[in-house]
Amino acid sequence: MNIKEKVRQMGIQAKKASRFLAVASSEQKNKALYAMARALRDHCKEILEANEKDLEEGRQAGLSYALLERLTLNEKRVEAMAVGLEEIAAFRDPVGEVLGMWSGQGGIRIGRVRVPLGVIGIIYESRPNVTADAAGLCLKAGNSVILRGGKEALHSNRVIAQVISEGATGAGVPEGAINIIDNPDREATMALMKMNDYLDVLIPRGGKGLKKAVQENATVPFIMTGMGNCHIFVDETADMEKAVPIILNAKTQRPSTCNSVETLLVHSNIASQFIPQAMAALHEKGVEIRGDKTVCALDAQALPATDEDWATEYSDLILAVKIAESLDEAINHIAAYSTGHSDAILTESYSNAQKFLNGVDSAAVYVNASTRFTDGGVFGFGAEIGISTQKLHARGPMGVEQLTSTKFIIYGNGQIRE
Amino acid sequence: MNIKEKVRQMGIQAKKASRFLAVASSEQKNKALYAMARALRDHCKEILEANEKDLEEGRQAGLSYALLERLTLNEKRVEAMAVGLEEIAAFRDPVGEVLGMWSGQGGIRIGRVRVPLGVIGIIYESRPNVTADAAGLCLKAGNSVILRGGKEALHSNRVIAQVISEGATGAGVPEGAINIIDNPDREATMALMKMNDYLDVLIPRGGKGLKKAVQENATVPFIMTGMGNCHIFVDETADMEKAVPIILNAKTQRPSTCNSVETLLVHSNIASQFIPQAMAALHEKGVEIRGDKTVCALDAQALPATDEDWATEYSDLILAVKIAESLDEAINHIAAYSTGHSDAILTESYSNAQKFLNGVDSAAVYVNASTRFTDGGVFGFGAEIGISTQKLHARGPMGVEQLTSTKFIIYGNGQIRE
Repeated sequence: MNIKEKVRQMGIQAKKASRFLAVASSEQKNKALYAMARALRDHCKEILEANEKDLEEGRQAGLSYALLERLTLNEKRVEAMAVGLEEIAAFRDPVGEVLGMWSGQGGIRIGRVRVPLGVIGIIYESRPNVTADAAGLCLKAGNSVILRGGKEALHSNRVIAQVISEGATGAGVPEGAINIIDNPDREATMALMKMNDYLDVLIPRGGKGLKKAVQENATVPFIMTGMGNCHIFVDETADMEKAVPIILNAKTQRPSTCNSVETLLVHSNIASQFIPQAMAALHEKGVEIRGDKTVCALDAQALPATDEDWATEYSDLILAVKIAESLDEAINHIAAYSTGHSDAILTESYSNAQKFLNGVDSAAVYVNASTRFTDGGVFGFGAEIGISTQKLHARGPMGVEQLTSTKFIIYGNGQIRE
Repeated sequence: MNIKEKVRQMGIQAKKASRFLAVASSEQKNKALYAMARALRDHCKEILEANEKDLEEGRQAGLSYALLERLTLNEKRVEAMAVGLEEIAAFRDPVGEVLGMWSGQGGIRIGRVRVPLGVIGIIYESRPNVTADAAGLCLKAGNSVILRGGKEALHSNRVIAQVISEGATGAGVPEGAINIIDNPDREATMALMKMNDYLDVLIPRGGKGLKKAVQENATVPFIMTGMGNCHIFVDETADMEKAVPIILNAKTQRPSTCNSVETLLVHSNIASQFIPQAMAALHEKGVEIRGDKTVCALDAQALPATDEDWATEYSDLILAVKIAESLDEAINHIAAYSTGHSDAILTESYSNAQKFLNGVDSAAVYVNASTRFTDGGVFGFGAEIGISTQKLHARGPMGVEQLTSTKFIIYGNGQIRE
């Protein structure tokens, strides 16, 4: 069987299983989640052996220390995956929630009820724990899932998916609910992107390259997640005591995350006072500064920024810094370069705070806080499947609820339309 | 300037205008809607002259009577368009609604607020009144719009769009808020489908051909609307007194609409009694029946159905009729052939009603009522932009609220992430 046909068969099975899951009770789904957690613990040794193979191949391929670190599993991390599944089981079941019901013509009753999406495809990169998290979230919301992990984690993902899938089927879920494409060939991803008959939505988690590939090739509906060129604008009225710690946190607390700040905009009226002080604090934390002319004049260590820097998501200890003559200029810069993830203003001006909140069109818009808060757990949604940077369906952190759709249910008693 | 570049320039202007509309007050938007209504009345003569050109060309091209009827404007219909815009002005403004606000770490406050989508592209077919309706709904929700009507209505649409756009700009809305592509070339539609930098969402309204073209070519997010292969299943416990009127209404009240029934499924236990009676009533209304073997044996006038009939949206006085051995068989048939628009069960069995409501995965699922109710106005949403048959973002009738997205707004006081 060629890859394309193999993915199609997977789609057929996943669709079939999704019809079971759509009407499964909360108890059935939770029982499966607990069984999946147990299966991870029971097969920890096999998972770690598979992970060792990935690490060995990664070392031979010369992967960076950071990538190898993300790839690494150990007993503690497998236990965390199991606990994650148990936490998902404890969430409220989103399916079946009635979001409203009202009366219409002749006493007809019209209601809106939350239902699963059906079959969800997820494309993700190196971290193997995503395999268990994503499968758990999809199952909780009554969906089948087709997983497509990064090739660096192929062995780990294959074993994790197999183990949790067996756990789930042992608890009564039909085969086909949890699937993994363990063929590193690009053709498999292409097949997934075009499988309109069996895939209800595709969630690609990743950077620019993946976004472009999906936009250009996908015929299925998709939700882009995880692109974060985030900004902080330091207004002329900003409280310096708060501003520097917020910027340091947003840049250095975990630079590889998509909600870290990438460009700092500083109001020109405070530049000469603020830039030296803030840059000194950033340099001390090992942050490389790429500044415009004024910034470079005020900070001898800064490198000159090019236009490309304003559009770059470094995901690293690098920060682009630019002077803005006004709040409007800052908002316009953000409109031009932001990926629409998380952008913040630091200000003590009520009017400027409101203007920024209204005028910046991003998933999360902040006043006087670190952009690092954009996260399903922090927002109170529990585990997240990703952070949507598009406007359709879900925007910002996506939890279990964002893995559902709704349908209208109509109770009649013989009504016809006049 | 070539077409592609012309559409791109339109996109740039629309994006610019959308930033004005996103922060415009309800009063500003309503003032524009009233001005648009006034402009339609003031320019009724020019609109009817343009419409006469379309009708003349349509007659020469041999358009059907039904198509010409849909294309025709008169004073009454122009007045109805104007009243439609005034009704939209009277709707509650969806933008700015706070859908929740809660506290997080260190007293940070996280809220979710409704915002416009930005720039909406709409592809639609013959009816020229859609030009005014769609522009009005988009503007109410704070969006710019790029309209792409059917080539049969080119002259009418061009004048309507020009007139309402001038009305809006006269009321202070920037140029670029309402745009129409009045070039019938397919390249213009293609450019719209791929304009990711300036188009936030595309809403194609139409049939199979348009759906296929959009799925295969669009790189922008889209919401498919208006595909309706709808079913009614007559369960063995159905009340015959209610069943026949519901079926007649769903098929004949307005056969060209997407919520009309196209396939009737009848439980085998009642076939010999129900089929003759129901078919007689349908034939009397001029409905052509395409039946399976049993149906043809029970109704001498029925033509034999082929597999293609189960998948066909006739939009005409034709009905496919099939016997189902059980409720499960009916649900499986619907899962295989429905476009996920509106499907109904006629039953007096509580359990079967619940099973059908849960098991059928369509935008609107009915018990004992005509599928013709699936409509924004009937559901209480006011005018609708279309009926979504996909699961992402909006499902079922889409009113003003479905033309919005949300964003998170975060009020901090110096909080950083631990």
